[in-house]
Amino acid sequence: MGIVVKKFGGTSVANAEKILRACKRVIEEVDAGNQVVVVASARGKQTDQLVADAYELNPNPPAREMDQLLSTGEIQTVSLFAMALEAAGYKAISFTGGQIKMITDSDHSRARIKSIDSLHIHNHLAKGYIVLVAGFQGIDEKGNITTLGRGGSDTSAVALAAALEADECEIFTDVDGIYTTDPRIFKQAAKMEMISYDEMLEMASLGAGVMHGRAVEFGKKYNVKIHVRSSIEETKGTIITHEVPQMEDIVVSGATIQKDMAKISLIGVDNKPGNAAKLFSHLAGAKVVINDIIQTEVDAEKANVSFTIGMSDFNDAVEAVESIKDELGCERVFTRKDIAEVSAVGVGMRSHYGIAERMFGALSKAKVNVDSITTSEIRISCVVDENQAEKALEAVCLAFELDKPADQRSK
Amino acid sequence: MGIVVKKFGGTSVANAEKILRACKRVIEEVDAGNQVVVVASARGKQTDQLVADAYELNPNPPAREMDQLLSTGEIQTVSLFAMALEAAGYKAISFTGGQIKMITDSDHSRARIKSIDSLHIHNHLAKGYIVLVAGFQGIDEKGNITTLGRGGSDTSAVALAAALEADECEIFTDVDGIYTTDPRIFKQAAKMEMISYDEMLEMASLGAGVMHGRAVEFGKKYNVKIHVRSSIEETKGTIITHEVPQMEDIVVSGATIQKDMAKISLIGVDNKPGNAAKLFSHLAGAKVVINDIIQTEVDAEKANVSFTIGMSDFNDAVEAVESIKDELGCERVFTRKDIAEVSAVGVGMRSHYGIAERMFGALSKAKVNVDSITTSEIRISCVVDENQAEKALEAVCLAFELDKPADQRSK
Repeated sequence: MGIVVKKFGGTSVANAEKILRACKRVIEEVDAGNQVVVVASARGKQTDQLVADAYELNPNPPAREMDQLLSTGEIQTVSLFAMALEAAGYKAISFTGGQIKMITDSDHSRARIKSIDSLHIHNHLAKGYIVLVAGFQGIDEKGNITTLGRGGSDTSAVALAAALEADECEIFTDVDGIYTTDPRIFKQAAKMEMISYDEMLEMASLGAGVMHGRAVEFGKKYNVKIHVRSSIEETKGTIITHEVPQMEDIVVSGATIQKDMAKISLIGVDNKPGNAAKLFSHLAGAKVVINDIIQTEVDAEKANVSFTIGMSDFNDAVEAVESIKDELGCERVFTRKDIAEVSAVGVGMRSHYGIAERMFGALSKAKVNVDSITTSEIRISCVVDENQAEKALEAVCLAFELDKPADQRSK
Repeated sequence: MGIVVKKFGGTSVANAEKILRACKRVIEEVDAGNQVVVVASARGKQTDQLVADAYELNPNPPAREMDQLLSTGEIQTVSLFAMALEAAGYKAISFTGGQIKMITDSDHSRARIKSIDSLHIHNHLAKGYIVLVAGFQGIDEKGNITTLGRGGSDTSAVALAAALEADECEIFTDVDGIYTTDPRIFKQAAKMEMISYDEMLEMASLGAGVMHGRAVEFGKKYNVKIHVRSSIEETKGTIITHEVPQMEDIVVSGATIQKDMAKISLIGVDNKPGNAAKLFSHLAGAKVVINDIIQTEVDAEKANVSFTIGMSDFNDAVEAVESIKDELGCERVFTRKDIAEVSAVGVGMRSHYGIAERMFGALSKAKVNVDSITTSEIRISCVVDENQAEKALEAVCLAFELDKPADQRSK
């Protein structure tokens, strides 16, 4: 007998019919002899409605009150879910974040989990209850209700799985797993059987929207086996797990595309220690989120610094750069809008040579012009023209056979 | 500087416009130099919607989960209310029942308040906050969310006023005060300036729906001045308070009507101690709510016992009576449907004579046939034919000048 945490997102519990379908998945697991903890999000558009209600009364609602308000959506789901399980003849009990002492810091709307009263849950599981926990929420040390930010229910589920030492954390969603790339762009994308935390983190930060990075980080830290799967079909989905030897053989696991990007280049910045730090802390102060940084020395005295950002931060970034460029001795600022970043991700990069060449070869063959390149240990990213982005992604996918399951690719 | 508790019902906070109107009342009080605690109910039909959602999943929802579900409606209101006050430039903070440790027993859906963490609220008032508390809810010793049953937000408000030693507890509602009788039946009904707790309790139990009996009981126990007033008009409403000498001069304060009643009579019950107790504990076991009891000795051996009940309990009551009548030596059971009870209420009855005569005289003059009569220290009730009920109420109202304010009546 094991413990399984099952997380259902808002679309999977949007109405009575969908709650009953989710119940069925829970009941199957219980009937198979396992203890089950359910984490659920607010039903369908409930959170959107509450947000709209709030903005109608206050264009700048205080974060504490917003958390207090939004936390109710998840509480409604889990109490209704418990009622449905009871109606089916199963013992069930629902808890708010506060009731299981999901203690967080006080950073409202993006709080971080500090501890969970796992004993309270274990006690109820031992008494034969299915335990339901409202996702997305916690309380701080003073008893204020907090929320965990985007993807918060995923984080709740993975954190609970870690605290309970669960065998698996299942994330039920409207896709049937994680694909090598976005199937809306590259139709032949293959479903992955398995992906490492690090790869998933790179893909999450690069815009693959299936799971939020923070939940994956939690999973990595506490080694929680995360199973992303369909709430409708019964097929197996994708397992996010620690790195296993067979992953080494997979050169590239996935590819991503990020559109609506811009690049800002500072040409001829004084080449002295601390200048880059000064620039980026200034940008952080202006709340600009930096994607990638490319720095090259021109000579002993001057360097060029470029960085990519989302288009939504463009105006703030330009303003921030203009106000600091003289201090950095910068000769000229050069901006470029309408770019995209295409990336290949894989832990196999660590042990394989020639990946970059294969990628550039494919892009060049597809006549895609590469503006700049950045790499991490398990990622290569190319900045390209936005109107060439999809062609670029396709070329990368074909070059690394991302249209095939990993075990069917040529070695 | 004093403390005022202001309670807004569901219709008074049904939408953004109404919440803003309620805010205005709160702001006026703060600007006048008082500390304000707001208690609010769920917005408009939110609770009804949640109840419907629950029954869609479970025709017999477990009470604990129902409380967990329904408590969210009030939390939404108070967080939105706090946001609106912040938008107007006032410091505001909302609390759930759990956050202010509104500790109750564990009797879900009709829990009773045991204690409140008034210090927590005082601390926030002292820091200049308007404190908002979700009505209708508490938590038990184990941290389960409970609700207080019908009229629960009134009870929350009065209990808070008691715990905080507030100067006044204002109940904002869709009527502008408490009337001598139901103005829908007797159009000339006069608004009362003042009513004693005991009179209000009699009127509440007799069906005057403005305030729930439990809240009034709480007010009486802790001597909380309750002000029932309109959420729309700024006029003064009705004060519910302890008995003051001037109330003695008012012979009858109000009159009520209860329709859809039935009467069950047990003829020729053995006249021995304990028989009545046996009957009524048997009826209590069948969950029949007894209104009034009339018992008369026929001779040393036999007595007649009658009682009135709501029509909804009629079948259960008849069944219960049939199953115990032989044991009581009852000769015959006689039932009467389609009756109503008309009552006159007033603490002045204690010190005035001839009230009953005046009432019967008025009923007789109006050609109303009186089936039976019961009295308490401050109440006289007559059972009449349902189709004569409104005529009876009118006759009683005119006899006691309930169409005039108390100070304009003849002595």
